[in-house]
Amino acid sequence: MAEAGREIAALIEQVARLPGLGPRSARRLVLFLLKRRGQTMLPLAQALERVARGARDCAVCGNISGAEVCDICTDPRRATGEICVVADVADLWALERGGTFRGRYHVLGGLLSALDAVGPEELRLPALAARVADDGITEVILALDATVDGQTTAHYIAEALEGTGARVTSLAQGVPIGGELDYLDDGTITAALRARRALD
Amino acid sequence: MAEAGREIAALIEQVARLPGLGPRSARRLVLFLLKRRGQTMLPLAQALERVARGARDCAVCGNISGAEVCDICTDPRRATGEICVVADVADLWALERGGTFRGRYHVLGGLLSALDAVGPEELRLPALAARVADDGITEVILALDATVDGQTTAHYIAEALEGTGARVTSLAQGVPIGGELDYLDDGTITAALRARRALD
Repeated sequence: MAEAGREIAALIEQVARLPGLGPRSARRLVLFLLKRRGQTMLPLAQALERVARGARDCAVCGNISGAEVCDICTDPRRATGEICVVADVADLWALERGGTFRGRYHVLGGLLSALDAVGPEELRLPALAARVADDGITEVILALDATVDGQTTAHYIAEALEGTGARVTSLAQGVPIGGELDYLDDGTITAALRARRALD
Repeated sequence: MAEAGREIAALIEQVARLPGLGPRSARRLVLFLLKRRGQTMLPLAQALERVARGARDCAVCGNISGAEVCDICTDPRRATGEICVVADVADLWALERGGTFRGRYHVLGGLLSALDAVGPEELRLPALAARVADDGITEVILALDATVDGQTTAHYIAEALEGTGARVTSLAQGVPIGGELDYLDDGTITAALRARRALD
């Protein structure tokens, strides 16, 4: 076992450093895989390697892609005039799961943050301004977190795009579907009340 | 993204089927890896593949090993006369982390279970009897779960080894280190009381 023992221990350490896992769950996970070396562990290793080698950041929007330009950016059925700005690929995935938005995206790669010293040059903000100026964008939808950093970034973008002719909008704030008023924070209730609308 | 998108979706599905993970944590995990393709994802894929290809079950004890016979079975510093019987490699790892036991192991690969229809032939029980008969084993320590299946298996082994001359012992039952009496179940308290011993 000498060699395998060391390699297994190193693998457990690698797995334990992944988000949501610790030494205990990493041991359980690796042992689970070790018992299914042929049917689970090897295919997983190969899928990971294939994706690790094949994936890259889309040159246009920053989405994770298998080509120079991603699927969404090259899809002719998607509206070219609307860009939805998200902080992260995870947010893009969340919106795609929703399936309502049929425009294109722009992934910033984070949010402006005074605390974490993230300035505009750390994010894909210049690229956004260039896209809006060059590609005839009519609407930029900001789908950013309803946090201080998210709102700071939203204001920064709105200012940066002033005078480009593109309309800058933001996701509505209000009561989430299935949300019970009793459990909502005051900020959400206030925002939902301010943005109240007539029943149609 | 067409190709990569499908491959990423397939990878997330594979990861979501692992123990302790679900669709949500799998997505988070894969995205974490996708952002660290070179420094985390590829090394992890390669470590998984190396271990998947290199590991095998020790022909003597059933431990997971990188060779025909495992490290523990070939270690000359470990007592040859004592075998500790465990249900699973996870239990062997737990005992090795303890670091007290310096004999060898026998991994059953499960426990007898009427409910799950696991009989002696599904486990490495015949191999255990053969080892005890052939290798001059003086003590067989049963380190099995304190559950119905664990105790059924323990009794089965004790009977099967009757007449071989090997002493069959079992882990002590009692109050766990750090355990508070107030929180212990009645069974443990009763067992600890029955097995009480003089302070030395």
